[in-house]
Amino acid sequence: MKERLILVTVIFENVLKEEIVELFLKHKTTGFTLSRVDGQGSRGVRASEFEGPNLKIESVVSREIADAVLEAIAEKYFEDYSVIAWDCEVNVLRGRKFSP
Amino acid sequence: MKERLILVTVIFENVLKEEIVELFLKHKTTGFTLSRVDGQGSRGVRASEFEGPNLKIESVVSREIADAVLEAIAEKYFEDYSVIAWDCEVNVLRGRKFSP
Amino acid sequence: MKERLILVTVIFENVLKEEIVELFLKHKTTGFTLSRVDGQGSRGVRASEFEGPNLKIESVVSREIADAVLEAIAEKYFEDYSVIAWDCEVNVLRGRKFSP
Repeated sequence: MKERLILVTVIFENVLKEEIVELFLKHKTTGFTLSRVDGQGSRGVRASEFEGPNLKIESVVSREIADAVLEAIAEKYFEDYSVIAWDCEVNVLRGRKFSP
Repeated sequence: MKERLILVTVIFENVLKEEIVELFLKHKTTGFTLSRVDGQGSRGVRASEFEGPNLKIESVVSREIADAVLEAIAEKYFEDYSVIAWDCEVNVLRGRKFSP
Repeated sequence: MKERLILVTVIFENVLKEEIVELFLKHKTTGFTLSRVDGQGSRGVRASEFEGPNLKIESVVSREIADAVLEAIAEKYFEDYSVIAWDCEVNVLRGRKFSP
């Protein structure tokens, strides 16, 4: 009843919301959640202040889609934005909902 | 000092809040957190719109409890609701707080 | 392009916010996010009520830093506060941002 899939998590600046959501949709992810987080990154200067509201997007996808999404995010945003992205393996209860 | 336990995560519609919390309590989970997330699922129609506020519940439990909770959720809600559920292994600092 | 690192998660009472953030900064974590969660713990009494807003801090760090942070949290807060802490391995896209 469970399927081993990948939970992709990306934390990014509010200003990227529409682009990142678009990027997830374009890669055939079939669902995701967005939540607001306050963050503090590693970009010097405001080292002791919060950078203010960021967003976190999470999506459970196949390994293939996870890699494609993360690669696209690295290419587009890592140079110029405070973006953090990771994945980890999870056991999903209704796997068929997420697989292609 | 650490114990290998299971982090159970379930994302569900607001309307199920009381029932899902009840379900977690009934299975002897000793703690959980709830947070609001915005979600977009795979239920067609509103493919380019957000479905609005959902809830995410997270709880660290034994393998046995994790399986019982997830099975109960699948049975009760997967047919009629947009519910997503997964688990993954975590190393918990104060394991005894979660174990039976 | 990915690096195996540790996602540290700590859930704690609002009153500890400044101290916990300070503790993360002191351990050379280079970024973290904070989000509000509602929680219910295992401290008896209010078993059927929510304990109200807690905070969740998440940070991706090296194994060494993860252990140091978690040990410090256990020492300082486990006796007197409702603190829950765990870690799990994740594959971070831009690892160099987090490593020393």
